[in-house]
Amino acid sequence: MGARKGNLLSVRDDIKVLDVTLRDGGLCNNFEFSDEFVSRLYKTNVRAGIDYMEFGYKASKKVFNENEYGKWKFCNEEDIRAIVGTNNTDMKIAVMADVGRCDFKTDFLPKSESVIDMVRVACYIHQIPAAIEMIEHFHSLGYETTCNIMAISKSSSDQIEQALEMLVKTSVDVIYLVDSYGSLYPENTADYTQKYMKIVEGTNKLIGFHAHNNQNLAFANTIETLSYGTSFLDASVQGMGRGAGNCQIELLLGFLKNPKYNLYPLLQFMEKYMPELRKNGVVWGYDIQYMFTGLLNRHPREAIAYTEQKRTDVAEFYHSLLENE
Amino acid sequence: MGARKGNLLSVRDDIKVLDVTLRDGGLCNNFEFSDEFVSRLYKTNVRAGIDYMEFGYKASKKVFNENEYGKWKFCNEEDIRAIVGTNNTDMKIAVMADVGRCDFKTDFLPKSESVIDMVRVACYIHQIPAAIEMIEHFHSLGYETTCNIMAISKSSSDQIEQALEMLVKTSVDVIYLVDSYGSLYPENTADYTQKYMKIVEGTNKLIGFHAHNNQNLAFANTIETLSYGTSFLDASVQGMGRGAGNCQIELLLGFLKNPKYNLYPLLQFMEKYMPELRKNGVVWGYDIQYMFTGLLNRHPREAIAYTEQKRTDVAEFYHSLLENE
Repeated sequence: MGARKGNLLSVRDDIKVLDVTLRDGGLCNNFEFSDEFVSRLYKTNVRAGIDYMEFGYKASKKVFNENEYGKWKFCNEEDIRAIVGTNNTDMKIAVMADVGRCDFKTDFLPKSESVIDMVRVACYIHQIPAAIEMIEHFHSLGYETTCNIMAISKSSSDQIEQALEMLVKTSVDVIYLVDSYGSLYPENTADYTQKYMKIVEGTNKLIGFHAHNNQNLAFANTIETLSYGTSFLDASVQGMGRGAGNCQIELLLGFLKNPKYNLYPLLQFMEKYMPELRKNGVVWGYDIQYMFTGLLNRHPREAIAYTEQKRTDVAEFYHSLLENE
Repeated sequence: MGARKGNLLSVRDDIKVLDVTLRDGGLCNNFEFSDEFVSRLYKTNVRAGIDYMEFGYKASKKVFNENEYGKWKFCNEEDIRAIVGTNNTDMKIAVMADVGRCDFKTDFLPKSESVIDMVRVACYIHQIPAAIEMIEHFHSLGYETTCNIMAISKSSSDQIEQALEMLVKTSVDVIYLVDSYGSLYPENTADYTQKYMKIVEGTNKLIGFHAHNNQNLAFANTIETLSYGTSFLDASVQGMGRGAGNCQIELLLGFLKNPKYNLYPLLQFMEKYMPELRKNGVVWGYDIQYMFTGLLNRHPREAIAYTEQKRTDVAEFYHSLLENE
């Protein structure tokens, strides 16, 4: 095992907390956040010392009908500016671009004309060449870039190594380890982290981690990966995100020792705005149905359907998953 | 760091899962479980391959009024036998005896006349001499014994070492590392585990772990400690236990690779009996107020009161805790 970086009391200046509430959380409510929610979250994140805030996807309007989604599925420049103005703060603004679902050649301004700082390119491992094309385009426009390789728990070690070796030769700034199915245990996360860290050793690229909470390990995996050198940490308010959700940003800020992070404004935001979402029927977070898909290393879609149907036949659901293995 | 014991696919025969649902969970409902609940849980645990089931406390009837608590606060021999008969199964039966709250000299039969297999002695670190007196008494009666040293996150390294050195010279079978306040991170848990393991090296004593879920790390800490050699693992159905609760037994059984464990009966039990408890207002499990006391390494009593009062002023509550540090 490689050495841990720092200890439980260290401040590591390379660490960046990236709030994914609107983006991954938007998958829970069709991106239909009120302007007040988004505006307050923005101000909260600035006060809390959050390093990056992801506003949503830059999805293709040819693939997706604008009338069927909230605006944060598309992140029009003017919509972001309506919230942040020129974003005269220390916090940077990110958006996500999915390979195959983004008109990347037409929908992005040069960075000099945009309030967006970072574009995160999400792909499956077989889409790495397409992701690289996008990354180089965004880099040439002047953006910081990440590559978020999803569902790596389904890929072989060889595939992952090949993908990482391709990426390390590109202009990408951050390579993300993504536990899409929430199937990793902390020991797995430590092993993957060390593999990713080794590949970027001697370069100026950084590693990021995006957790899912299917086995209630999102926070545990996040602090495990950071202890082995991961810099970019995704988290969201109350873990809001698809299915079992993500790492809870409040737990993460509690853990981090850098005095620039401030939990208090986040608590004020949580108290005021999150119960409303729950009351309106928006559902996310760890529950036993997500444990099953995490354990079986499967896409959470069946568990999401189980949740939406308000089923309670836990044993039968587990049985049916095993039958379909 | 000491080596991990086994890997993520290993079966370790030394591992014993101990269900604390009635005992730690009883702290949530005044030990007022229906006979049907207890009987079904017993049968479920047997079918699920659980190694030990803790029925409750053997509390002093001089200190506590029998009319004010459910019967599992006292675990009368005849009450246990009404559920388990002679317990003609592979599962062993445990009860807990608190130092200073147990008439240990009068309330225990010789093991040959009792259906109880194990007595777990819980104490604070300054009560170790009293705990040892109880342990030797229970040992002389023929019981397996554990010593559960609580709140060690409040004790100095020197104190813990002294306590362990005293215990290792006794007849105790298992020494428990107890994260009473849910304040440990997995890295801390690994460090403590290695300290405990080192003390019992070369003896036939084993180490156990009892988690609390204040920072949503009960399961993560449990699998971390076991990876460094801990054998006895406490867990409960849906993590039922005081305040933020314990390690969820369903997550733990999902993790363990020994084919003797069987998740399915537990799911059937959960589905049938746990929603009723929740509906009747029994409350436990991770929530932000418990994160605060975990983070601040404090007894959860203020967070429990906050929960009972159904308060939602999260930020003010956090502020008040900081004011009282």
